[in-house]
Amino acid sequence: MKAAYYSGDKTIRIGESRARRPSPGEVRLQVAYCGICGTDLHIFQGHMDQRVDIPQVVGHEMSGVIAELGTDVQGWEVGDRVVVRPLAPCGHCPACQTGHSHICYNLQFLGIDTPGAFQGSWTVPAYTLHRLPDGLPMDQAALIEPLAVACHDVRRGEVQPEDEVVVIGGGPIGMLVSLVAQHAGAHLLVSEINPYRVALTQELGLEAVNPRETDLVETVQDRTAGAGADVVFEVSGSAAGAAVMTQLVRARGRIIVVAIFAEPPKVDLHRFFWRELELRGARVYEPQDFERAIELAASGALPLERLISARWPLEGLQDAFEQIESSTDLMKVLIDTQQ
Amino acid sequence: MKAAYYSGDKTIRIGESRARRPSPGEVRLQVAYCGICGTDLHIFQGHMDQRVDIPQVVGHEMSGVIAELGTDVQGWEVGDRVVVRPLAPCGHCPACQTGHSHICYNLQFLGIDTPGAFQGSWTVPAYTLHRLPDGLPMDQAALIEPLAVACHDVRRGEVQPEDEVVVIGGGPIGMLVSLVAQHAGAHLLVSEINPYRVALTQELGLEAVNPRETDLVETVQDRTAGAGADVVFEVSGSAAGAAVMTQLVRARGRIIVVAIFAEPPKVDLHRFFWRELELRGARVYEPQDFERAIELAASGALPLERLISARWPLEGLQDAFEQIESSTDLMKVLIDTQQ
Repeated sequence: MKAAYYSGDKTIRIGESRARRPSPGEVRLQVAYCGICGTDLHIFQGHMDQRVDIPQVVGHEMSGVIAELGTDVQGWEVGDRVVVRPLAPCGHCPACQTGHSHICYNLQFLGIDTPGAFQGSWTVPAYTLHRLPDGLPMDQAALIEPLAVACHDVRRGEVQPEDEVVVIGGGPIGMLVSLVAQHAGAHLLVSEINPYRVALTQELGLEAVNPRETDLVETVQDRTAGAGADVVFEVSGSAAGAAVMTQLVRARGRIIVVAIFAEPPKVDLHRFFWRELELRGARVYEPQDFERAIELAASGALPLERLISARWPLEGLQDAFEQIESSTDLMKVLIDTQQ
Repeated sequence: MKAAYYSGDKTIRIGESRARRPSPGEVRLQVAYCGICGTDLHIFQGHMDQRVDIPQVVGHEMSGVIAELGTDVQGWEVGDRVVVRPLAPCGHCPACQTGHSHICYNLQFLGIDTPGAFQGSWTVPAYTLHRLPDGLPMDQAALIEPLAVACHDVRRGEVQPEDEVVVIGGGPIGMLVSLVAQHAGAHLLVSEINPYRVALTQELGLEAVNPRETDLVETVQDRTAGAGADVVFEVSGSAAGAAVMTQLVRARGRIIVVAIFAEPPKVDLHRFFWRELELRGARVYEPQDFERAIELAASGALPLERLISARWPLEGLQDAFEQIESSTDLMKVLIDTQQ
């Protein structure tokens, strides 16, 4: 079976891997599609070499079919169409003990801390599975994982119908957060500096501004009659995003930090004091977020197909990473492991 | 009647003022005591010259007795012992319209944006009054206003019995926050670099460490078996406090920003993401915080008397400010306007 190995130094090597037989409680999946996550790009670029086990197969935004069941697996059958919630919590740390196992202090992320899904088959614990409804195409199902992130973010933001919401950063996650929040009845404004993404956002029926061309604070003031937004999602991970986020929110409003900040940015804590703002981090997802994402995807209410910019065969993973690195005109890129 | 005027350039001038007759809906108070707030010190030091109206009487942490009633004042009588919640909201801004008038977008702070209580009598709207119970001494009653701040902060922090709480900064507000949180059943650790304040904190039955001598992160890890604190109050307003606060909190824990940060510090937003932390600003108080503060003060449960470091007559306000500026061995300083 073919597998794509990250081999360090921006190199993907295509090789053969042996399908790992499922241990008790595990299943082996035949992978259909696997999306390229921002984290996969970080790995490709060498920023996470201390965390991965080179040469390593990565990838976790996948859809697939159960090919083999380990012993002690209940409720699943060979042939079931599934996605994987790629989290393996320890079960005994302070986060796990208080019901927050998705942010386990010793969390193993499948496909980063363990081998991933850029290969023909993937063996994972059965407790990570979520069932796909019949009508949902497997390529769109590969977007369930990032869509579950967005569902988690919107839930953390407690977005209500008619809320004024600003999303800073219109990449794949920012776009999905915007679509989920809009579907929840909120009024959306997306701030994005990439003209392709601004245009795509607008095509998908969301309002978008380029903050290099339009004053974002003024725009939000105008939209909200001077009150400020109810909820702001910081999805850019930029110093500029961190600087402006506090200026956009109404008294007692919320800022949800979704992005991964490589460096601690300056944050206007005085504004938090002055307007009694709230900031919440939001990381990955809980089971209910996956269920909600599957429900939303299956409903056809979100234009998921439009977010798929490119499809590559497994042998094209190196080219796919290079395309993402060099092009600004991409949203989600999928690897089709069936080709 | 004597009044102490801030006259710019670190100068207080003692002069005569005429007691202002109360307009409809107002009362005139005979001031008993008025504490010196950190904000008053900022004014004295010239940092707020654009906001005050020099020469201006400032001061707002007061206790007093009603001396005269304006027309249309119901429920109050001459001789009633009271404290003032010194906030005059506009009533029509987005904060006022959503029930958060204490953080009104156009808030007037009595004693800063209007004349204050460092004088023999003070005329204020009757809606700002809270009644004092008979047994509460007037000097301790002058601590109600900062105690109401602490009650508001602890309420914003949703402190629960048995919570592990860290307070960064053991000045008057940090000390009151600590005492209120401890009274609510939490386990307190105060971080403070001033040895006098560390010693006083310990004398008052609170655990305290000097983070220049003891590793604060390690101490909190040890106290919480590696989990982290449930709630951290940032009351120092320092870059060091902002840097360490995110390291102290458990998964889904809360950081309450009480301090006024003069400059936006660097904040580890990655940690907010990683542990799904929450940060909330907390500013001034709502009516229920004043009621709670009065109840707590009257109960005798808090060692308020021990927090009063010095009492000066009105003529000593200049000396009092200079004492606060030069000495590190002070907690709360009161002006006795009755002398």
